[in-house]
Amino acid sequence: MYTSIPVPRKDFSGGKSGVPLLSDDRLFPADATTRSIARQLYASVKDLPIVSPHGHTDPRWFADNANFPDPAQLIVVPDHYIFRMLFSQGVALERLGVPRVDGGAVETDPRAIWRLFAEHYHLFRATPSRLWLDHTFETLFGLDVPLSASTADLYYDAIDARLKQDDYRPRALYERFNIEVIATTEGALDDLRWHAQLKQSGWKGRVVTTYRPDSVIDPDFEGFRDNIRVLGEITGCDTGTWQGYLEAHRLRRAFFRDHGATATDHGHPSADTANLSADAAAKLYQIVTSRDATPDEARLFRAQMLTEMAKMSVEDGMVMQIHAGSRRNHSADIFARFGRDKGFDIPGRTDYVQALKPLLDAVGLEPNLTVILFTLDETVYSRELAPLAGVYPCLRLGPAWWFFDSPAGMRRFRELTTETAGFYNTVGFNDDTRAFPSIPARHDVARRVDCAYLADLVVEGQLRDDEAAELAHDLAYRLAKRAYRL
Amino acid sequence: MYTSIPVPRKDFSGGKSGVPLLSDDRLFPADATTRSIARQLYASVKDLPIVSPHGHTDPRWFADNANFPDPAQLIVVPDHYIFRMLFSQGVALERLGVPRVDGGAVETDPRAIWRLFAEHYHLFRATPSRLWLDHTFETLFGLDVPLSASTADLYYDAIDARLKQDDYRPRALYERFNIEVIATTEGALDDLRWHAQLKQSGWKGRVVTTYRPDSVIDPDFEGFRDNIRVLGEITGCDTGTWQGYLEAHRLRRAFFRDHGATATDHGHPSADTANLSADAAAKLYQIVTSRDATPDEARLFRAQMLTEMAKMSVEDGMVMQIHAGSRRNHSADIFARFGRDKGFDIPGRTDYVQALKPLLDAVGLEPNLTVILFTLDETVYSRELAPLAGVYPCLRLGPAWWFFDSPAGMRRFRELTTETAGFYNTVGFNDDTRAFPSIPARHDVARRVDCAYLADLVVEGQLRDDEAAELAHDLAYRLAKRAYRL
Amino acid sequence: MYTSIPVPRKDFSGGKSGVPLLSDDRLFPADATTRSIARQLYASVKDLPIVSPHGHTDPRWFADNANFPDPAQLIVVPDHYIFRMLFSQGVALERLGVPRVDGGAVETDPRAIWRLFAEHYHLFRATPSRLWLDHTFETLFGLDVPLSASTADLYYDAIDARLKQDDYRPRALYERFNIEVIATTEGALDDLRWHAQLKQSGWKGRVVTTYRPDSVIDPDFEGFRDNIRVLGEITGCDTGTWQGYLEAHRLRRAFFRDHGATATDHGHPSADTANLSADAAAKLYQIVTSRDATPDEARLFRAQMLTEMAKMSVEDGMVMQIHAGSRRNHSADIFARFGRDKGFDIPGRTDYVQALKPLLDAVGLEPNLTVILFTLDETVYSRELAPLAGVYPCLRLGPAWWFFDSPAGMRRFRELTTETAGFYNTVGFNDDTRAFPSIPARHDVARRVDCAYLADLVVEGQLRDDEAAELAHDLAYRLAKRAYRL
Repeated sequence: MYTSIPVPRKDFSGGKSGVPLLSDDRLFPADATTRSIARQLYASVKDLPIVSPHGHTDPRWFADNANFPDPAQLIVVPDHYIFRMLFSQGVALERLGVPRVDGGAVETDPRAIWRLFAEHYHLFRATPSRLWLDHTFETLFGLDVPLSASTADLYYDAIDARLKQDDYRPRALYERFNIEVIATTEGALDDLRWHAQLKQSGWKGRVVTTYRPDSVIDPDFEGFRDNIRVLGEITGCDTGTWQGYLEAHRLRRAFFRDHGATATDHGHPSADTANLSADAAAKLYQIVTSRDATPDEARLFRAQMLTEMAKMSVEDGMVMQIHAGSRRNHSADIFARFGRDKGFDIPGRTDYVQALKPLLDAVGLEPNLTVILFTLDETVYSRELAPLAGVYPCLRLGPAWWFFDSPAGMRRFRELTTETAGFYNTVGFNDDTRAFPSIPARHDVARRVDCAYLADLVVEGQLRDDEAAELAHDLAYRLAKRAYRL
Repeated sequence: MYTSIPVPRKDFSGGKSGVPLLSDDRLFPADATTRSIARQLYASVKDLPIVSPHGHTDPRWFADNANFPDPAQLIVVPDHYIFRMLFSQGVALERLGVPRVDGGAVETDPRAIWRLFAEHYHLFRATPSRLWLDHTFETLFGLDVPLSASTADLYYDAIDARLKQDDYRPRALYERFNIEVIATTEGALDDLRWHAQLKQSGWKGRVVTTYRPDSVIDPDFEGFRDNIRVLGEITGCDTGTWQGYLEAHRLRRAFFRDHGATATDHGHPSADTANLSADAAAKLYQIVTSRDATPDEARLFRAQMLTEMAKMSVEDGMVMQIHAGSRRNHSADIFARFGRDKGFDIPGRTDYVQALKPLLDAVGLEPNLTVILFTLDETVYSRELAPLAGVYPCLRLGPAWWFFDSPAGMRRFRELTTETAGFYNTVGFNDDTRAFPSIPARHDVARRVDCAYLADLVVEGQLRDDEAAELAHDLAYRLAKRAYRL
Repeated sequence: MYTSIPVPRKDFSGGKSGVPLLSDDRLFPADATTRSIARQLYASVKDLPIVSPHGHTDPRWFADNANFPDPAQLIVVPDHYIFRMLFSQGVALERLGVPRVDGGAVETDPRAIWRLFAEHYHLFRATPSRLWLDHTFETLFGLDVPLSASTADLYYDAIDARLKQDDYRPRALYERFNIEVIATTEGALDDLRWHAQLKQSGWKGRVVTTYRPDSVIDPDFEGFRDNIRVLGEITGCDTGTWQGYLEAHRLRRAFFRDHGATATDHGHPSADTANLSADAAAKLYQIVTSRDATPDEARLFRAQMLTEMAKMSVEDGMVMQIHAGSRRNHSADIFARFGRDKGFDIPGRTDYVQALKPLLDAVGLEPNLTVILFTLDETVYSRELAPLAGVYPCLRLGPAWWFFDSPAGMRRFRELTTETAGFYNTVGFNDDTRAFPSIPARHDVARRVDCAYLADLVVEGQLRDDEAAELAHDLAYRLAKRAYRL
């Protein structure tokens, strides 16, 4: 491990006393005039409520409103951004408490996990995780010395103590964070019990679900055919037929809408779409539900289903999100030992122009349709996504996603899409996270980066200041509400 | 439409009084020292004549010298940058006066079209269209309040009144714009009557044509086989044979040169080239002229013809331009209802390294050949185009094109090509437009962006100030004249 | 040639007197505060010893320690960055003294070559070559007027005089450059005589070799089958069998380690890897060693051999470098007349995600393995390389390579990799050059660019100043030593 290099590490704060972790002017431009404009723009939007239209928090947190367990389980163990970085420098996942598929032994002492994390905190320098974590440490837990091996216990104790307090339970945090609405994401077979319980609880927070049917759409998903069977049982539809299967989707979409959903979400390896005849689609459905699909059959079925989902969105008004381009579970060994979502999802080249044509020829000019596109291939921002979203009325661009949910990544997104698609074909920010305490930090980063970009445009004479002020508000708040129909 | 959001829109100028639309320092770096250098560089080139070596103005304008009809027909209806953005936000093309293929009803009241455009002007914030339009509004039409719904009529009346004046006719504008030479683009079958009329008119403006033979080279072009027949009739060549067809091209190229042409232009979906034997090429010609070509045959024929055109350029000295990578008419529905050039031409990934090898192996080292490459795939700037142009003596890089003809796009072009190809393997600026009033604005943007880039290099110690001054002049004026042999 | 344009070239220094060529603040940010931080960071690392873990200097220089012949042979004739740029502007390679394959006449007068170079020096404006050359001219040869046609002889005489001095011999320069260790690169069949001679010389400089077995791994390499035969003779292994061939590699790797090697290097057209069964690999070996391989066979054999080399690295601890993506010898004519390495190696799109999976599934989690990845396709920095290196413990990212070894290229590398992979999955700087006098300039550029990047992060509140100081040291010195096990 790198930390074994004998460097006299000059510690800025002496590891002791109250130097704030966060600069007030963080992520603003260096030039004094531009920075001053960025500051003013940011001041006008920093206290706006958080609209979180897409993410992965657990609805049970808000339904049960139990205390979070401990610092390691809250911050380290579930966060693939964190454990993948430590793993890349030789730290075994077991030592970080990541559960094994076979139930084998892993570290269970949260303080030991926390110390290991703290020792390696320098690895995150200049990464977005560092920004989110320091923001959480300072603003939520009142910490004012940098995290390091020497401050690990100080941190652990401070965070652990707060987590035991009532005002650190999920609903209290929701309110402290000034969240106006937050969307969770549930699979098509979910019973939405926590959302139902929330609705009946009388709590005023707004937690809505999102329809994510990958497990009954992707023939390569584990248990696909069983999932289809369960889908039939839940809905009372005959999922042995193509029409019954489609009807089951319609019913589930309605059920999700009853639990607040305004959107669907689709995580596909590519953005391929297809528009087969009803007969050809029905035949393909028989194939993929009766035996293991070939790669081409699986690809074509996923492609056809994106178009079917878009057609249903025209009918029922649900906003459609396409998250395309992740090559999941790259390491066969890690997948076998630890399962999905372990930091081994790697982007690859992704085409949109030919891929989306069948869907767009089918429903691309429908006035009631909104399709929000996300990508892990930044080369398509200026070449494909902005030109498409700059002309098709149904298309909107989701914000910089996953690895690119970073200050530089957000900046690239704006620089590469605005010139062709403008601002009003984009949809504001998504935090897209299961790391609940980091949500204010993530929105704060997005607001700062957008204000910095707008300030640059003002100084370059490309925007008037009144326009920049209106845009800052739009990007921080209004566009998300509007695009997601919240 | 977005404007229905009830925002108290703080209007910078109150929509009333003379705050200039344009900052004198627009597009210059924020840093004061750098900005000062950029200003000085720009001052030394801003009044240089405009050399416009590639574009799509109508030669009839200059030949007839009639007044332009009205603000909507001049500025809105023919500009796909404008109507595609409004369409992306739900405005029907019919309401913008865009003609339908079937001759069906569309809006004909220019003031209604103008108002609709004005209501949506905020969509263009931070796009190059906004820069071009504000420049035109202020410098050509003397407007000093921002365009919006509330100033739509003020704008319409002001522009309409000017367009009726003699000093706003095409030739007067050519002179006012300080144009030294402008190239139009005509198809291979064009009779060039307007250029002929111009030559005989005694007017001192220099308007030259460009040979663009796509309609007789691309088997997928509408009416390809009829076009070939007409080519034979015009030239008296037997276009039933490969040799006759090639000879017809030679004669047309000579005819275009008689009307001032120094260049050819080729708009192809890819940069593929081929170098078949004469026999194989003749056989392929028989196939593509006798029946519908397969996609592979069409591709191969286009590829072969790029090499044939390059060989003819070696003979006759015409500069060859390749504009590759647009996937045309992406929406089948829009193409059927409105035809070509309606904003649905979308870029896609484009290879140059393998694609150009046959042409380059054939004639790439010829001292008299110039081939200017354009791309809609920015990923090739540093990976393919700069390395190719940095070694092959015939290759030059055209400026940032179409969607990338923007301040940030031009900057990316310089940052990604200069380190490998330098400045002297590039060719200055192309406005590439049919929007005649925007031409000074477009050259102004290019000159400002280049001066800003040069100023950054001076401040970073990568250029001396005398070098930057010489380069500013080269990029604004000399390189275009030299590369296009004008 | 461009210089024929009659420009009144305002010469900054009058071509006469001592204006320094180099700004003290070159490559630092324009903003005064940021520049001041960059200056301080740079001051703390500028005098650190040079660690050059990968390059192409000639070990004979250090073994023989003879004077370099003349300015043209030292600086112009062997540098493809230089002669490709002049060739791109119409200067024949023969006039630059580049040797022909057929031994035909080329320019032999070094002063004539130098003058030709000097006349075209403006072509290099804002290229990295210009930075390296001016640094060399000023700091090594004491020149203080810009190079141009008018100063060509002054330069030639000054450089030539120094090259005759004892303190400009290779070992003296090594010491003057403050090199701590430098790696050369030798083919698998090299007898390493110069390294052996060096070891026995008693000179304290550390010059190590690197194992580069392309000529016995790539079936498309000239003389591949002969090379395999010689490999057998040298090692005493039966290279007629797959196992004997592998054993020969093991012996050669050990022999190279005896001459200081800590690393291997692999220059492949793609990053493809494979992990065949031993039987399938043995059969493939029989095919590629018994007849001309098909392109697919050659590709598969190279792919398999990357995995074999990785397995051997697990055994013997040699660090593995993969330099992928160059399409070599693009011009058939230049290759026939001048051979390899003549500036016609052009990058192309290169995939890493699928390509590396077989190797990574085989040995990607081995704790003792280090694989350093280089690319000529910058689109993979953020999409593929950073996500892979940010999770696989064996992977590290090599610095911006070849065409991208430029200030802007290095900056893009940091901006596109740091957010996902951090700094500690990168390996510091490689000069990768055979241009010995340019080595200090190249490391100086890298140190300046990294300090500028770190200063920006400090000003943006993403790093504390103590962290930036530690990182500056890491990037300039420690990471290279550690990654290459030097």
